[in-house]
Amino acid sequence: MPNQVPQLALMLTTRSGPGVLHAVTGVIAAHQGDITSVTIVEHTPGLTQLLLEVTVPDADGLLGALRHAEVVQQIDPVATFQHVFGKRVIIMGGGAQVGQVAIGAITEADRHNIRGEKISVDTIPLVGEQPLAEAVRAVPRLPRARVLVLAGSLMGGEIEKAVREVRAQGLTVISLNMAGSVPEASDLVVTDPVQAGVMAVMAIADTARFRIDRLSKRTF
Amino acid sequence: MPNQVPQLALMLTTRSGPGVLHAVTGVIAAHQGDITSVTIVEHTPGLTQLLLEVTVPDADGLLGALRHAEVVQQIDPVATFQHVFGKRVIIMGGGAQVGQVAIGAITEADRHNIRGEKISVDTIPLVGEQPLAEAVRAVPRLPRARVLVLAGSLMGGEIEKAVREVRAQGLTVISLNMAGSVPEASDLVVTDPVQAGVMAVMAIADTARFRIDRLSKRTF
Repeated sequence: MPNQVPQLALMLTTRSGPGVLHAVTGVIAAHQGDITSVTIVEHTPGLTQLLLEVTVPDADGLLGALRHAEVVQQIDPVATFQHVFGKRVIIMGGGAQVGQVAIGAITEADRHNIRGEKISVDTIPLVGEQPLAEAVRAVPRLPRARVLVLAGSLMGGEIEKAVREVRAQGLTVISLNMAGSVPEASDLVVTDPVQAGVMAVMAIADTARFRIDRLSKRTF
Repeated sequence: MPNQVPQLALMLTTRSGPGVLHAVTGVIAAHQGDITSVTIVEHTPGLTQLLLEVTVPDADGLLGALRHAEVVQQIDPVATFQHVFGKRVIIMGGGAQVGQVAIGAITEADRHNIRGEKISVDTIPLVGEQPLAEAVRAVPRLPRARVLVLAGSLMGGEIEKAVREVRAQGLTVISLNMAGSVPEASDLVVTDPVQAGVMAVMAIADTARFRIDRLSKRTF
């Protein structure tokens, strides 16, 4: 699971051309930096802008070395997405129920974010077994995604398989109490959608005393 | 703005060590591929997993060349985030109002997604001028973010500056009708939070006939 917290996010302006990414990654590797993400923000024949998120023991040392790298023209530190948007709750399924789970999750995240947490709540209304299974399988690849809530009235088959796969990769899955085999494949089953959203946030908030693996029952 | 649509997403398993990213990016460059994102999913001394999103004229040619690259051990095509999660509406501000805007946006996105659109609705409840200004400034760097809704009762100062900056970068900003200077800096001002969410989705849905720049008034 993407639990690594990059403490350095940089917008690098470099010259373009082959070898630039190689040179930049070489400097980072020499400082034992672990690149968690590279996004090419702009790319013209003369100039490239790279957004890098890096975990590194000596951030100042790396910044100094990058400033002296031949390919680098400008370095602008930016806020990491981890710092700005924090951990993510992902909610997917039918629009009516996704909306109610979102209300619970957003209201609860608000209470924790006021106390210094950073939790964001991301949703996608989706219909159909294949699109939902595909979306479930994509969640572990989403940066900072920590818990998935499946909100609907009937989910099973390929979606159940996808739930078992992503749980094996370390993702926590909460399901509404619904028809189909998804509830029995999930970590937690909740009947009230607002409560499902609240519990999803509580499960990942460091400011909450709530651990799904400590619950004596798994259906509410 | 990140409007480029990568049509190829690959999970590459490679050997680890210096030069791997250089070799992989060289193969992609030789096929005129434009890398929009590289995420290092796993990185051990023996093995590296790279998630790449690439826009490329000849996808099959690139896949063939990567299969023959010395450093590449395995290639698994995965669904692009664009394909799975689509365009993003971002909602930020106070929890109570973010929740109501989300209800409108999720319900409206549901109606469009059923007709083949892919729109997701992402939120973060946040309080305070500096955290909100920082979050507004980060939105243009978020992949696939197309419209921002600011939901609160009072926003101005540094947030207003941030709104003007991100609009200059091409992002559409919708504000609730509220105290402070943010409404006058925004593309559209809406009083009802549910309607603000609905309009945000309509503004980016190809399945909707609604363009903010064609409206004769900007406050509702």
